[in-house]
Amino acid sequence: MIRKYNYGTPFETEAIVKKFELSSGSPEFGTIDLSEGFCLEYLMDEMDIVYGLGEANRGINKRGYIYVSNNTDDAIHTEDKQSLYGSHNFIILSGKETFGMFFDYPSRITFDIGFTHHSKLTVSCEEANLSLYVITGDSAYDIVKQFRSMIGRSYIPPKFAFGFGQSRWGYATKEDFEKVAREHREQHIPLDMIYMDIDYMDSYKDFSVNEDNFPDFKAFISEMKQQNIRMIPIIDAGVKIEKDYDIYEEGVEKGFFCKKEDGSEFTAAVWPGYTHMPDFLNQEARTWFGDKYRFLTEQGVEGFWNDMNEPALFHTPEGLKRAKEAAREFIQEEDEKCSVWGLNSVLGGLANNPEDYKNFYHNIDGQRVRHDKVHNLYGYNMTRAAGEAFERIDPDKRFLMFSRSSYIGMHRYGGIWTGDNKSWWSHLLLNIKMMPSLNMCGFLYSGADIGGFSENASRDLLLRWLAFGVFTPLMRNHSAAGTREQEFYQFEGAEDFRHIIGVRYRLIPYLYSEFMKAALQDDLYFKPMAFEYPEDKIATQIEDQLMLGNEIMLAPVYTQNATGRFVYLPEEMIFVTFKSDGSIEEKRMEKGSHFIPVSLNEVSLFIRKGKCIPVCQTAESVDELDTTKLTMLGYENSEYLLYEDDGVHKDYENPGNYQEMKK
Amino acid sequence: MIRKYNYGTPFETEAIVKKFELSSGSPEFGTIDLSEGFCLEYLMDEMDIVYGLGEANRGINKRGYIYVSNNTDDAIHTEDKQSLYGSHNFIILSGKETFGMFFDYPSRITFDIGFTHHSKLTVSCEEANLSLYVITGDSAYDIVKQFRSMIGRSYIPPKFAFGFGQSRWGYATKEDFEKVAREHREQHIPLDMIYMDIDYMDSYKDFSVNEDNFPDFKAFISEMKQQNIRMIPIIDAGVKIEKDYDIYEEGVEKGFFCKKEDGSEFTAAVWPGYTHMPDFLNQEARTWFGDKYRFLTEQGVEGFWNDMNEPALFHTPEGLKRAKEAAREFIQEEDEKCSVWGLNSVLGGLANNPEDYKNFYHNIDGQRVRHDKVHNLYGYNMTRAAGEAFERIDPDKRFLMFSRSSYIGMHRYGGIWTGDNKSWWSHLLLNIKMMPSLNMCGFLYSGADIGGFSENASRDLLLRWLAFGVFTPLMRNHSAAGTREQEFYQFEGAEDFRHIIGVRYRLIPYLYSEFMKAALQDDLYFKPMAFEYPEDKIATQIEDQLMLGNEIMLAPVYTQNATGRFVYLPEEMIFVTFKSDGSIEEKRMEKGSHFIPVSLNEVSLFIRKGKCIPVCQTAESVDELDTTKLTMLGYENSEYLLYEDDGVHKDYENPGNYQEMKK
Repeated sequence: MIRKYNYGTPFETEAIVKKFELSSGSPEFGTIDLSEGFCLEYLMDEMDIVYGLGEANRGINKRGYIYVSNNTDDAIHTEDKQSLYGSHNFIILSGKETFGMFFDYPSRITFDIGFTHHSKLTVSCEEANLSLYVITGDSAYDIVKQFRSMIGRSYIPPKFAFGFGQSRWGYATKEDFEKVAREHREQHIPLDMIYMDIDYMDSYKDFSVNEDNFPDFKAFISEMKQQNIRMIPIIDAGVKIEKDYDIYEEGVEKGFFCKKEDGSEFTAAVWPGYTHMPDFLNQEARTWFGDKYRFLTEQGVEGFWNDMNEPALFHTPEGLKRAKEAAREFIQEEDEKCSVWGLNSVLGGLANNPEDYKNFYHNIDGQRVRHDKVHNLYGYNMTRAAGEAFERIDPDKRFLMFSRSSYIGMHRYGGIWTGDNKSWWSHLLLNIKMMPSLNMCGFLYSGADIGGFSENASRDLLLRWLAFGVFTPLMRNHSAAGTREQEFYQFEGAEDFRHIIGVRYRLIPYLYSEFMKAALQDDLYFKPMAFEYPEDKIATQIEDQLMLGNEIMLAPVYTQNATGRFVYLPEEMIFVTFKSDGSIEEKRMEKGSHFIPVSLNEVSLFIRKGKCIPVCQTAESVDELDTTKLTMLGYENSEYLLYEDDGVHKDYENPGNYQEMKK
Repeated sequence: MIRKYNYGTPFETEAIVKKFELSSGSPEFGTIDLSEGFCLEYLMDEMDIVYGLGEANRGINKRGYIYVSNNTDDAIHTEDKQSLYGSHNFIILSGKETFGMFFDYPSRITFDIGFTHHSKLTVSCEEANLSLYVITGDSAYDIVKQFRSMIGRSYIPPKFAFGFGQSRWGYATKEDFEKVAREHREQHIPLDMIYMDIDYMDSYKDFSVNEDNFPDFKAFISEMKQQNIRMIPIIDAGVKIEKDYDIYEEGVEKGFFCKKEDGSEFTAAVWPGYTHMPDFLNQEARTWFGDKYRFLTEQGVEGFWNDMNEPALFHTPEGLKRAKEAAREFIQEEDEKCSVWGLNSVLGGLANNPEDYKNFYHNIDGQRVRHDKVHNLYGYNMTRAAGEAFERIDPDKRFLMFSRSSYIGMHRYGGIWTGDNKSWWSHLLLNIKMMPSLNMCGFLYSGADIGGFSENASRDLLLRWLAFGVFTPLMRNHSAAGTREQEFYQFEGAEDFRHIIGVRYRLIPYLYSEFMKAALQDDLYFKPMAFEYPEDKIATQIEDQLMLGNEIMLAPVYTQNATGRFVYLPEEMIFVTFKSDGSIEEKRMEKGSHFIPVSLNEVSLFIRKGKCIPVCQTAESVDELDTTKLTMLGYENSEYLLYEDDGVHKDYENPGNYQEMKK
């Protein structure tokens, strides 16, 4: 049962695709106070669990902290951070009472989930202009599925996007990319994609290519594709201010950039220097910007990642003026009184400054809307611009698309990666915990930067992270300029990396099938243990094991120097190990807790009682996979429903895509 | 067997108290290259474990990262940090070959323990002037005990220091402290100490008290002591430059501050503004500074904490000049070229700048020694100044003393707290993992800021941290100004805090006895599981359970929202729970892995097979404990050797301190 309540004048975010009658009265859960903005309070029971919030920090159970939906480019995802890149205002309370709530509100909104008071859930925002959807159902899992059906089908990438992708901020020239391709192919490490970070562009200009580095970009894309490698360029939100740069000039001429109160374009420095921000919330501007992707699709590009679209701002001219004033005062102060911290904090506060977000406006159906009021929709609508354009460019074809910033609704147009994490073991664990929450909010095609983006990765961290990455739909090794080189061939023992990525390819028949079924049935690819074993009091609190699809459970190793880990089995399962010699070991294990050995060069999973999964032989790219010869792992006399399609087009409803497999 | 090797001209750190003949030739483990400074390389076996390094980041097994001994005031202890506040250059390799190595070198030294290459241990420093001690023995545990016997008996605090202490940066007035005392006493939350952070002083001047806030300090100390509460003031390293301030004037006159190359005093800004740094490496200056503690001991103070003694430097006049130049350039740059990050990094680099550490000198026995060459000895010698003074002030009395910065050798003069951690669950885990390593290096009296120093703590984090803090010799709740107030009475349900701290007091007979036996026998209070169960392949890799003394094992809960945890028992044990109603539940559990329930308001421990421990009734201060009536928990027909003394004096060798207890 879904009830919709409106407060004030909600902004139409288009997160929800179904229409609902408005309910009268108050929601049956919690109390709402409208005296100062909007505030919902609900008294939690001691054992209540709170799920949801998608790309948010900390655990699967969100209880015990404060989360603020306020899309932010903050690269330091320590435990205390309240805001990340996306805003996914869907929570599910599970316990004494069980219900879901979606707060469709495009600006800053705060979820205090038992932090200030252990038993109090408080959701509040400054303006009481929002839609609140209250969902009741049989269980948390049922409520999630209802929510997913409200928000429309999740984005489905082409099948090649289930292969492995290599990335690094710093690859700049054709030769850089060719080296990556060559090293993988020569060492027989499977590879389907190489990501192009900002340095492929000419002066960081969107929809440009550095011609010195790529004398014939189209031929380059085509040569790579002949090796079954797709090049996936980045697109940033800000458009460089540069005379004769067509996109800049067109945008100004057509009025498609965000404007300040005085009608002039809003300016902010990002990678290219000063830029203007396309008004993605304006339908016409969105169409205009989306069509620019043709510049690359026409050269053979089949996928993109959208970045810096919170939007991230390094500084504005106004901010810089303030900083220069502060620097001037700093110089003039007597030494003893000089505040280094004071100036430091002025400078540090220039980036993504809330005041700057109040300084520009969108033109939405002729209405001027101040940016901060709809801040969390910006990345969503940038990705929507691309998604809507792909429908025009080739309506039958699937393009790869994922974004850094997002809001619920964007899940229909693209996936997300989880932003600029670090080479920390704790970020591998954060990756594990975040995946089911993302799925609940519709983001199925997602993953973290394997090995960590900033800081230096060790070989063992990379291997353990990769062994979890085997299971995330988006499987990408990405790292920042200036950090230790993180391609597999930079480390000893390439065979271990080859083996683990090889296992990913062996599992693609299952992983792709489960992904597609989850997408087509508004279901989850990753689930918390609690969703499958709600009555098991131990399983319901485990956050470092995940259910993947309907057949398997994962228990990734995420601690350094561990040769294995403890795992809890809520029922008998088969423990499967993909050994480094290529063999597959299957061992039946009874319900209970066990220590399982998992070497650095092994991949393990558990098959649930009475189930089986298909595996194929490995290959060096998705295109080369032979999925006609499948081996079934798991329980004798069990069955599996395999989904397969051509991986390119959108013929999802064809009953021929399904096949009953038997072990 | 201990062998000593000298390279070049080692600086006499006085870390080692025993004399050793020099060995000729090379150590039998690893190869040493002296072509560029000092470099030892050792090829590790796949399963080798590396213990040691005391106050270092990450795990009990140090393998897989780079650690740099370079005492640093860095308050962000994320996984990537290589240096913390102390330098404890003792490692134990345990595996195919087993040996210990102590690198007695007072400057920056790097331990690459299988990070760059998984199998390579590399220890290197710039100058080949050091003593290397190589220790062989039956086991890692045996080697640690040999090392401990080389470095002299660990510091022993007075018994009141095993009580609970409350602290917060921000308590300033007599009334602030009286409120803390009153709240604890009124709510019957045990309390033995209140720590006085920098605000008790007059303008942050060492050995001064703000007279407005404390009209009669001596009477105040005495009134608090009548309530069985000791006031523990902080002492910072830097001495404020202020005309007519006696310590400043004396220090200048006697030449007891560190000097620059030109012979003038080195100046750096810290809390008081510009300060000079006492030359703690100069014996006379040390005696002079140490005697200043009399100002407070004569007013009844019985304990101190030494801080900012890496030494931490906010900036120097020279640094500030560079920063002002950078600010001037920043102002003059055209907006488009302006580097906010550039200026920010100049400002951020002012604190603890390595160039500043090269700019001043110590006067050691008439020799001028540049600070950076002996940097890691500064905090050690500040605390030694105090320790040596206490011997003069009252040779029979134990004073409480712990420090932030340290080097091995300092463990004879004081304990340490682990510095400015955060209200992060991961820092609770770091606290757990760090304790045995600290013990290996001689630091027995230690603990972390319970609840976390910076960031905001939630009630559940504080309770879980406290339940581990029950077992750390130093048990202190400390937090930073500006964070959420973290005294127990700021949260709901004072009874839960009262209960957990009460359990600490019930356990003091055992904890004190084990601490004293560890100190008197050069043994460990906290041990890794591996030291007791070296043959158990699972136990040897567990890092989130600890052995405490000879009788108990701990398995603290350190994840949010968990109602318990998995625990591994290498042998049968009795699981003891101190229930919130005051009852004690004992349950025999067999060898293997189990899920144990532990509520937020419970304390649990495991008693090893065939052993027992004493508990007493709780009290509100250590002085009020009745240790004549002990109850024994654990196995029937088992025995325990109890150590007890008056807790004030140093009559350690009295055989009457030991008592055989039977269950």
